[in-house]
Amino acid sequence: MMKIDVLTLFPEMFEGVLGHSILRKAADQNAVNYNIVNFRDYADNKHLTVDDYPYGGGAGMVLKPQPIFDAVEALKENTNTSPRVVLLCPQGERLTQRKSEELSTHDHLIFICGHYEGYDERIREHVVTDEISIGDYVLTGGELGAMVVIDSVVRLLPDVLGNAESHMKDSFSTGLLEHPHYTRPADFRGMKVPDVLVSGNHRLIDDWREKESLKRTYMRRPDLLENMQLTDIQKKWLDDIKKECK
Amino acid sequence: MMKIDVLTLFPEMFEGVLGHSILRKAADQNAVNYNIVNFRDYADNKHLTVDDYPYGGGAGMVLKPQPIFDAVEALKENTNTSPRVVLLCPQGERLTQRKSEELSTHDHLIFICGHYEGYDERIREHVVTDEISIGDYVLTGGELGAMVVIDSVVRLLPDVLGNAESHMKDSFSTGLLEHPHYTRPADFRGMKVPDVLVSGNHRLIDDWREKESLKRTYMRRPDLLENMQLTDIQKKWLDDIKKECK
Repeated sequence: MMKIDVLTLFPEMFEGVLGHSILRKAADQNAVNYNIVNFRDYADNKHLTVDDYPYGGGAGMVLKPQPIFDAVEALKENTNTSPRVVLLCPQGERLTQRKSEELSTHDHLIFICGHYEGYDERIREHVVTDEISIGDYVLTGGELGAMVVIDSVVRLLPDVLGNAESHMKDSFSTGLLEHPHYTRPADFRGMKVPDVLVSGNHRLIDDWREKESLKRTYMRRPDLLENMQLTDIQKKWLDDIKKECK
Repeated sequence: MMKIDVLTLFPEMFEGVLGHSILRKAADQNAVNYNIVNFRDYADNKHLTVDDYPYGGGAGMVLKPQPIFDAVEALKENTNTSPRVVLLCPQGERLTQRKSEELSTHDHLIFICGHYEGYDERIREHVVTDEISIGDYVLTGGELGAMVVIDSVVRLLPDVLGNAESHMKDSFSTGLLEHPHYTRPADFRGMKVPDVLVSGNHRLIDDWREKESLKRTYMRRPDLLENMQLTDIQKKWLDDIKKECK
């Protein structure tokens, strides 16, 4: 069973996301155990302060090292694991599917979420093993980032996804973006499903889907094609697509 | 006031995130109004089905056009706005700070969250104005993506951030990653704050911080430097940093 600890000042933010759908199901199946910790509980000062003014001046507050060091040590105390300690921050390595796959092989993850404060550098240097950013945009805190990493990791654990979920082709596992999908009705307010999909000819359907995947990837994310080994027929299709799009 | 509607099959997932911190505060201040809608309520069939098998065969389910079309039309009915309709999906444009800034200028946003189903292509073509992906990793549904976009947008609305929050220098607004932060104690278990930060010399402190910002950006995200106009002193520092790092 994977153990996931989250250090946050807003534990209630996690309830809705961890309490539903796949993340809930994974916990119910004992594939994962979530432990949400308010690290204010570890502050050793009378006022339970977790942040303080920055050395060198300037506006904004900085998370003190003591509560985080002590909280992480307490979480490590009762385990034989050597946990990965993940800090969510804009300076971190950008999350990729490969990173999520790698994290999913560990049995203990600890997430540290700051919330509009900065982190004392000694936390980064001495406690954290991985600094992760989920993308190039500014969020209020690390909580949503932690939820995103947790979702992307937990769904990869063995037996967590049922048939219904795992059969959707994942865009980043094939290397191409998904082809268009259609379901009933074949004519919805005059908007029709492409003829090929109702033709019953499965060779034509497969070809259409693969070509549409290539086309969408070429139009929207040409960077994904750069590192791919295309088959001969894919190369030919891609040439056709480039001509069409001129 | 910005109006944000979210179409989802898991409305409870949003409570914790929208009910705390800045997103809660923004609603309390009437800077934003959240309306979470279960689009199953708009299904016009007896069994309230929202998905169906894909045309052309294959595993996985596809969200039917009818419930989404009708839900979006109902949300538009009572407003004079022309809302942006955002679909969260891996094929979408990647979220950037610039995109969040742009969305924050609109007065009505509607988010559509699928959940391991695919979307019928007619939804993309005829209802959606923006397809957004928060990053190159696979998530269980669009819900976390919607929360991420909402957080990045709502914090930009006028008067939502108080002093404490807005004074943190945002990594993506200066173009460089943040310099290290330190707070008390100056010596924590033998780990010390850099001398310059306790020197009281503000010119030296400012220079140290700017150089550390440059260094961190060069080490971790050299791509961010490519499109920046550096000052002469920044260029000199960057040369020094490159020599140090050799």
